[in-house]
Amino acid sequence: MQIGVIGASTCSDEIGKLAFQVGREIAKAQAILICGGLGGVMEAACRGAKEVGGLTIGILPGARQEDANPFVDIKIITGLSYARNIIVVRSSCAVIAISGGYGTLSEIAYALNLGVPVIGLNTWELKSQNHKELPIIRVDTPWEAVKKAVEACMK
Amino acid sequence: MQIGVIGASTCSDEIGKLAFQVGREIAKAQAILICGGLGGVMEAACRGAKEVGGLTIGILPGARQEDANPFVDIKIITGLSYARNIIVVRSSCAVIAISGGYGTLSEIAYALNLGVPVIGLNTWELKSQNHKELPIIRVDTPWEAVKKAVEACMK
Amino acid sequence: MQIGVIGASTCSDEIGKLAFQVGREIAKAQAILICGGLGGVMEAACRGAKEVGGLTIGILPGARQEDANPFVDIKIITGLSYARNIIVVRSSCAVIAISGGYGTLSEIAYALNLGVPVIGLNTWELKSQNHKELPIIRVDTPWEAVKKAVEACMK
Amino acid sequence: MQIGVIGASTCSDEIGKLAFQVGREIAKAQAILICGGLGGVMEAACRGAKEVGGLTIGILPGARQEDANPFVDIKIITGLSYARNIIVVRSSCAVIAISGGYGTLSEIAYALNLGVPVIGLNTWELKSQNHKELPIIRVDTPWEAVKKAVEACMK
Repeated sequence: MQIGVIGASTCSDEIGKLAFQVGREIAKAQAILICGGLGGVMEAACRGAKEVGGLTIGILPGARQEDANPFVDIKIITGLSYARNIIVVRSSCAVIAISGGYGTLSEIAYALNLGVPVIGLNTWELKSQNHKELPIIRVDTPWEAVKKAVEACMK
Repeated sequence: MQIGVIGASTCSDEIGKLAFQVGREIAKAQAILICGGLGGVMEAACRGAKEVGGLTIGILPGARQEDANPFVDIKIITGLSYARNIIVVRSSCAVIAISGGYGTLSEIAYALNLGVPVIGLNTWELKSQNHKELPIIRVDTPWEAVKKAVEACMK
Repeated sequence: MQIGVIGASTCSDEIGKLAFQVGREIAKAQAILICGGLGGVMEAACRGAKEVGGLTIGILPGARQEDANPFVDIKIITGLSYARNIIVVRSSCAVIAISGGYGTLSEIAYALNLGVPVIGLNTWELKSQNHKELPIIRVDTPWEAVKKAVEACMK
Repeated sequence: MQIGVIGASTCSDEIGKLAFQVGREIAKAQAILICGGLGGVMEAACRGAKEVGGLTIGILPGARQEDANPFVDIKIITGLSYARNIIVVRSSCAVIAISGGYGTLSEIAYALNLGVPVIGLNTWELKSQNHKELPIIRVDTPWEAVKKAVEACMK
């Protein structure tokens, strides 16, 4: 079970704590954490997973493995820049979006497009042009986020 | 000047008419129309551009040039599936989003991320997690959309 | 008809002259020249095409349109680094390989893999592990190269 | 240490045996095996690695995780078709080419271009246009192949 964590490469301490807990819970659920491999939300989540012995994968945008945060076990070097975002989404059975900027928004869009369930923790508010809310599963805690992701992956 | 048109591969007649007018105005402004090369909004826009002698480029997701709508002059065959979305955005000095689904949303996100101006015609409503509106230039008519796009490209 | 020209981004004067003539002949055959958009063989070919009023397309590896040589009309900005090589091949009905380095070799391999005819002008010698020559159409002059490419495209 | 194995998605029994031994030796060297995730050489190598408890990664060209051979642990779903070849190469500190077709040739070319050491086991014969042999490290056995790959990775 590969669960994606998407979020910005810089983040506040508060968001970092949420990401750390999400990473921890993913590892405790015996799932593999997949992310973009950089800093911020990605690094905090990987750190959380490693603290409890989890396995982490970073799908890196650049050409250098040194770009990976120190908690990435497996470094996939794409050299594709932001086009790598879709690989993170496709390789996940569910993605957990934590806060996030425009890159995260592109990943949420790809996930909804491809039918990959999106769990949202303090993330984007999105309405279509006819004012319909998007099918993002909104949660309030890291524990709930991972619980929902695991449930989505088992369907 | 390469102006992007982004929107869904199927659309209502009403949206198709808007896209047709956008394509027409792009060609009349002597700009090149760039899009994803498929049906719906993309086809209507290309048809509009060709009616007044414009040049159209389709960045196709699949591996077959037959996938292009009949109004595409230059067919760029990527074989990259939806990862081609970012190429449409990067190759445009501004993008006009017309209505649109999740694919369009991913393109809007990429454009905002890369600093490519986004003109919105009846498109997504988006707010960040702190309730801020996104910097999409909202317009009401195809004429205004192309005028704003040309202005953005000339900056 | 979109004919690809593949070759290195730096080249000798002698190879540059061949590329220039190839570009010229492509334009005279009313075909569109497609290439990687950078210097060397690509620039010389584009310059040849523009001298006789042809249309040129550059599929750029980087994120900046300034990377294009000055003879590229249409700039496709991929940001995909060398992964853009396959787009040059897929978008061509035949490719003309002029001398070339490892990047050109990757494009020849992709073309043979995808069934895109390869015309070779002073290019790689390749034998499979069982010593069979590869199906590259070897020619000695730019005129012959474009003649063979046009023939292949019309099949 | 991530070592790449490149080769065709169908192969003879004899080549399959070589690939199996290569996979086994990679795992015994405590390295992670990375490959394109499909059948033939890739499957045989993954099977060899799993037999001795190794970890295997498949960088899949398509959009479905079912395309992976049954011995792939971590499935990276790219949806990029053959453009994924460069990701296999970039993510490896050395690649072992076993026999192989045109896809393998594109990967050898990318590796030489990017400076990733290539170990060749019964693979392509390549000469540049000036008749120089390419810098492929030729070996005769799976043991020697993995030994050379490990050495290259440790430099």
